[in-house]
Amino acid sequence: MAMFFNIFSLKNLLVLSLALNVSLVLRVLYEKDFEVNNGRSVDNQKDALTTTDSVLSEARATQRARPSMPSSSSTVDGDGGDTIINLDHGDPTMYERFWQQTGDKSTIVIPGWQSMSYFSDAGSLCWFLEPEFAKEIIRLHKTVGNAVTEDRYIVVGTGSTQLYQAVLYALSHQDAVEPRSVVSAAPYYSSYPLITDCLKSGLYKWAGDARSFNKEGPFIELVTSPNNPDGYVRQSVVNKSGGILVHDLAYYWPQYTPIASAANHDIMLFTVSKSTGHAGMRIGWALVKDVEVAKKMVKFVELNTIGVSKDSQLRAAKVLQVVIHSCQYPTSLGSLFDFAAHLMEERWKLLRAAVRQSGLFTLPEFSPGSCSFLNRSFAPQPGK
Amino acid sequence: MAMFFNIFSLKNLLVLSLALNVSLVLRVLYEKDFEVNNGRSVDNQKDALTTTDSVLSEARATQRARPSMPSSSSTVDGDGGDTIINLDHGDPTMYERFWQQTGDKSTIVIPGWQSMSYFSDAGSLCWFLEPEFAKEIIRLHKTVGNAVTEDRYIVVGTGSTQLYQAVLYALSHQDAVEPRSVVSAAPYYSSYPLITDCLKSGLYKWAGDARSFNKEGPFIELVTSPNNPDGYVRQSVVNKSGGILVHDLAYYWPQYTPIASAANHDIMLFTVSKSTGHAGMRIGWALVKDVEVAKKMVKFVELNTIGVSKDSQLRAAKVLQVVIHSCQYPTSLGSLFDFAAHLMEERWKLLRAAVRQSGLFTLPEFSPGSCSFLNRSFAPQPGK
Repeated sequence: MAMFFNIFSLKNLLVLSLALNVSLVLRVLYEKDFEVNNGRSVDNQKDALTTTDSVLSEARATQRARPSMPSSSSTVDGDGGDTIINLDHGDPTMYERFWQQTGDKSTIVIPGWQSMSYFSDAGSLCWFLEPEFAKEIIRLHKTVGNAVTEDRYIVVGTGSTQLYQAVLYALSHQDAVEPRSVVSAAPYYSSYPLITDCLKSGLYKWAGDARSFNKEGPFIELVTSPNNPDGYVRQSVVNKSGGILVHDLAYYWPQYTPIASAANHDIMLFTVSKSTGHAGMRIGWALVKDVEVAKKMVKFVELNTIGVSKDSQLRAAKVLQVVIHSCQYPTSLGSLFDFAAHLMEERWKLLRAAVRQSGLFTLPEFSPGSCSFLNRSFAPQPGK
Repeated sequence: MAMFFNIFSLKNLLVLSLALNVSLVLRVLYEKDFEVNNGRSVDNQKDALTTTDSVLSEARATQRARPSMPSSSSTVDGDGGDTIINLDHGDPTMYERFWQQTGDKSTIVIPGWQSMSYFSDAGSLCWFLEPEFAKEIIRLHKTVGNAVTEDRYIVVGTGSTQLYQAVLYALSHQDAVEPRSVVSAAPYYSSYPLITDCLKSGLYKWAGDARSFNKEGPFIELVTSPNNPDGYVRQSVVNKSGGILVHDLAYYWPQYTPIASAANHDIMLFTVSKSTGHAGMRIGWALVKDVEVAKKMVKFVELNTIGVSKDSQLRAAKVLQVVIHSCQYPTSLGSLFDFAAHLMEERWKLLRAAVRQSGLFTLPEFSPGSCSFLNRSFAPQPGK
């Protein structure tokens, strides 16, 4: 969720532009005969890491443009023609290489007669949650040590974006006199206000930067940690009572930040798009302590989409199983997290080199921390 | 969508109860050694079609209860013990038998490295719509002749429920002084008001029965045809200007009603749960004439769930392909529509027999109509 649809300051835009370029260069370096998903082949594979412009020129061949969001686009002159770089989103296809080498182990097969029912586990609180997926979520968190799953209810969502809305619904009151304030410390994921206010709900309302929030009454504070867009580990900043915390932990995985301890919050949101790279599945999950909150979240998903794709849940279960197996029995690429951490490290090296060369921007410096999962100390290397 | 979460009048409840019973009997008749999906075997297969009570007793073994919705449940004394019949939903698992006999043809295989991106067709208006699925939607409508697809945009949704909300968002104005009224002729799908009002949107608001609607200003009229819950073919009923029509055609398939002609409305909603029986996929689609409406619907799905499960779309493409093939080259069960129409016919026969026997209720009588797809005349046999 947190990688998507950002509206950036100019500085953010440019830094992201560089990050994008570096990722494209890496892609070219890794996959010399790489063909992009839309069928066009990369025909421009000269040494691209000399200037920003030549890096950008690579983008013309590889970038999957999404022309509907022009506000975040940038036009540059590459190697002789106009080049449009769309900067408003990321896409976790960089993990494809890991998944390719897992072969059949991560392949899902679903016969036509399976999974026809609305129901996955009719008797459970979250009746549309596939039990196999729930089991693998718990195993994965235990393996990585990034979140406490004991005494939690799992609610599955169509991406963590849906779960964010489910949380807002669950924490609001139908009979409230005025909408509940929703805040987050700036800079925050720019889709938060858009999603929160798109229907002009009478239940909740975006109230901006948590640091300057001083309204009386109950409120919801979103804590995105590591944060999107700046990558810092975060805690609640509002210093007054009446707040309910929601932790968006989409990036709390060892490829992005050292795992210091198992997160132990009341409401925690995760997504496969950031953990395993499967954005196309649209699968997220929430770990929720309070049964009434969990029930209301389930109710929202019922009303919003009558449950969550079973096919993607079954596939997600298989994928998590393979991730866990890769942690226990690493291949030549290591576990998924070894592979992805290495990838992020390389990209940050290239990004820092490119930014140094440009002399125009600065990048945040992160302090190293000890990671209980990777058993080494390293500085955060944010996905965003 | 239209089969779900209904709050019924007492009469509706009882009629549905009988329908449920008959379906259970049929299930037992069809599948003597049938095992229900949750692993419990049916151990009670005596001749069940003698009294309502004995029919209900069958339900104890087969019914997948969903205890979270007690408002629509009914407790009866079956053959010696308490029996809880949950009447608040249907589930299209009755089509499983057709899909079983298609074998590998309808099986989907997705390797772990596929469909990782957010994007399905980055350059198109609906960037998260799988092109293969779009192609099969058009082929299916052409084969069945139930909807015009020319000069329409296809928008995919996480079930038609999400598309219903996308339509409301698309047809409302962010800067409107007051919420736009949403109406439908009673009796209407009872989830409509719940979904419409659950977030107390300032953009739109449920305004009840379309027949008694007399408020000035723009409005949205939902036309569900065949209608849920009563099965009648419908047209718009509001006789004043300023209305935009939305056609929910979830049940406009030859197993439920004669296909009189290709529907040719501005906004038409469909879902695989009713056409092929794959409710667990959570896949619906809209055929939309106006490009601006389609764009706003896409925007809603972006904000709501950042697209729609690729896995389920790919599976839906495969399933539609097999349905079309079954129309061109019918097997011993006929096409899916032959099979399903026969199933519905049998169920309605049994339902009418049971209702006659009870002497307590009446069922609607439908006039036969000519079906251009099945090439015969028959009376509607609604799924709800």
